[in-house]
Amino acid sequence: MPTGEPSNPAPDIHSVVAAHAALRARRPLVQCLTNTVSTNFVANALLAAGASPAMVDNPEEAALFAGIADAVLINLGTPTGAQVAAMRLAAEAARHAGKPWVLDPIAAGALPWRGAIARELLGFRPAAIRGNASEIIGLAGLAGVGESAAGGGGKGVDSTDQAGDTVAASLGLLAHASAVSASGPVDHVVGLVDGRAALIRIAGGSALLPRVTATGCALGALVAAYAAVAPDALTALVAAHTHVSAAAELAEAVASHPGSFAAAFIDALDSVDASALRARARIGVAEPLQAT
Amino acid sequence: MPTGEPSNPAPDIHSVVAAHAALRARRPLVQCLTNTVSTNFVANALLAAGASPAMVDNPEEAALFAGIADAVLINLGTPTGAQVAAMRLAAEAARHAGKPWVLDPIAAGALPWRGAIARELLGFRPAAIRGNASEIIGLAGLAGVGESAAGGGGKGVDSTDQAGDTVAASLGLLAHASAVSASGPVDHVVGLVDGRAALIRIAGGSALLPRVTATGCALGALVAAYAAVAPDALTALVAAHTHVSAAAELAEAVASHPGSFAAAFIDALDSVDASALRARARIGVAEPLQAT
Amino acid sequence: MPTGEPSNPAPDIHSVVAAHAALRARRPLVQCLTNTVSTNFVANALLAAGASPAMVDNPEEAALFAGIADAVLINLGTPTGAQVAAMRLAAEAARHAGKPWVLDPIAAGALPWRGAIARELLGFRPAAIRGNASEIIGLAGLAGVGESAAGGGGKGVDSTDQAGDTVAASLGLLAHASAVSASGPVDHVVGLVDGRAALIRIAGGSALLPRVTATGCALGALVAAYAAVAPDALTALVAAHTHVSAAAELAEAVASHPGSFAAAFIDALDSVDASALRARARIGVAEPLQAT
Repeated sequence: MPTGEPSNPAPDIHSVVAAHAALRARRPLVQCLTNTVSTNFVANALLAAGASPAMVDNPEEAALFAGIADAVLINLGTPTGAQVAAMRLAAEAARHAGKPWVLDPIAAGALPWRGAIARELLGFRPAAIRGNASEIIGLAGLAGVGESAAGGGGKGVDSTDQAGDTVAASLGLLAHASAVSASGPVDHVVGLVDGRAALIRIAGGSALLPRVTATGCALGALVAAYAAVAPDALTALVAAHTHVSAAAELAEAVASHPGSFAAAFIDALDSVDASALRARARIGVAEPLQAT
Repeated sequence: MPTGEPSNPAPDIHSVVAAHAALRARRPLVQCLTNTVSTNFVANALLAAGASPAMVDNPEEAALFAGIADAVLINLGTPTGAQVAAMRLAAEAARHAGKPWVLDPIAAGALPWRGAIARELLGFRPAAIRGNASEIIGLAGLAGVGESAAGGGGKGVDSTDQAGDTVAASLGLLAHASAVSASGPVDHVVGLVDGRAALIRIAGGSALLPRVTATGCALGALVAAYAAVAPDALTALVAAHTHVSAAAELAEAVASHPGSFAAAFIDALDSVDASALRARARIGVAEPLQAT
Repeated sequence: MPTGEPSNPAPDIHSVVAAHAALRARRPLVQCLTNTVSTNFVANALLAAGASPAMVDNPEEAALFAGIADAVLINLGTPTGAQVAAMRLAAEAARHAGKPWVLDPIAAGALPWRGAIARELLGFRPAAIRGNASEIIGLAGLAGVGESAAGGGGKGVDSTDQAGDTVAASLGLLAHASAVSASGPVDHVVGLVDGRAALIRIAGGSALLPRVTATGCALGALVAAYAAVAPDALTALVAAHTHVSAAAELAEAVASHPGSFAAAFIDALDSVDASALRARARIGVAEPLQAT
């Protein structure tokens, strides 16, 4: 477990509502180095949620912009040689400038080239890591941490594991990041509470979320936006997952197929307010974890 | 005409319904090397139709992933040097692994650089080729086959030819692919039926389809998805065209302008079931063709 | 002020309606070298408005295609080394072939690398320049023209300046382009009227426009489409801004959140006709400007 992390209480609905208010008030500028499938959807999700997106992902500008942005998202969905160079520079610059950055390690456990990139990027210490279950388990395996690491990997970009199986992997990844989440029907978020590792489960959401591409990428971008305004990375993860789950439920109430759900989800990221968060949040109590 | 192709009966509504059931049951993983305009829409179309998309299009990972995927789409809409390198590797790996791959030769006849790439990719023998009329005629011209080849080319990405004029070109392209289709108000699909070349016309669809970008690209991706589960490439083409035409008709029933049509089309790719296919399919009988 | 520009009267609602009719009748082919966030939305906006998009942005084909296209859009949103090479070639070829091209200098004042590219591209003399207020002021500063240039720059891709503060910058940029516009709650368009610089203000639109990504990029693409059919660049700018403002108002009437607004905006770009333009246009009279 890392030392030197500031103490912090367990995030709950009150801290989520406060983070949401801060997001809307401060409108953080989020630099996104993300995959080509998600750029438009991620930008619209950030705008709808209340943040300001900027897709600056070339090696010539990435480091400079990380100093201007309030937070950085690095998503490994469709890496190219040039974009990977930009990712290294942005992660290094963000770390140097004390800006939080978020790693979304898409398919890192399944594809060795991007796996090596993900491992290298961990050296720049992301504030938070967000992935599906197979990605979190696979990343832990790459980093040499987490008991169940050998079991992960996934089939391409889809998870073949369950979020509930990621706890050991996430715990291990706390050596590299302040907080880690695995998305699933119940999201599993792991981070430090008062200096000790804890698990927080977040229920809710919609079965239509994984039927629309880039909804996971949008969640990762919202984690970065919240990391710019929340007191710590664990709160940022809990707030972003809660915001997305509430929005997905609102969207599902008006759309039953993925095309209309996608537009309704963007609408709902905008319309979610404190009362919607309070009414829909299903944030579990923090469960203490034993370091392995 | 190629030798060694397995015999197969003419696809009809029964084989289309069976292919659709197989798609939903097996959820094939489709690797897409496609243009930047279409990535999000293609991924959502595949998800809605029942497949699993993965946009792995860099030279470092393309070959490896073609061995993992169930089928590969190569779309020449916005090629870059690096993506073209990935296309060669993916097509070669797909052929080596016996995975079907689909070529969508956007503007290949109009632009010499990508024309040369398309001709080279034919050497890796796509299972199916899908394009608009000008693209099919242009590609046949590049390959040195097809009587009317000199007349084609198109203006940029738009067809200046009619689908009905593509039959000779498609017949010639059977030297390089198992089946070929040209999209239009009436789609023209050419392939082998019991070892002999035949034409199948598919009517239906919507005049709004060409008013939304990437709907043709989405059709190409669905051909790849169906190629992973159908008994042969001709059935895959007929099934994908029929699925798309039925979905377009359902979308047109609820949307009269292109923005809402795009979302309704994704919804309808999801909602199309066996009874919708049976009610809307307008698949002509196979018409024998004389090899030129 | 440039010499040799043809004389032209001030654009008004009659010239906008005429340009719109010409757009629908001639369906100009618009080559787009644009950012990865906007490609799909820009293509759909062009299709809906009545033009034909083609995203040919690689160095191997960009110059050739500029000779085929009716107009070219160059948008600096997410430049890469290869795309920048293509931009130079396309701008040069467009100039050589006498095709109008439009510069959308996203964040050019804020990021030195793309700032140098923007300055270089000005040498190929765009027909029109379109940006937000900070981008226009920043670009004027890069070009060494415009009194208030030093004050501009913006924070990333967002404007920190008001459109009304851009007049001196736009006036200075007339040394490099035939007409210049700055988007805002009231758009400010500057160009030559009967050989003398003038300002035209265009009101209307929707507060939801800046809450959807790539709506400004779509406007830039429509400027290129109109530049292919309008008698001069100033008319093209006024027509595109008016078309977009009318469409945004129609969309706002049926959608109150950004996800559904985006689809409704594409619908409305299609449905806007001469009577909608006449009913909604808020085009100010041309106000003479004193050259600085």
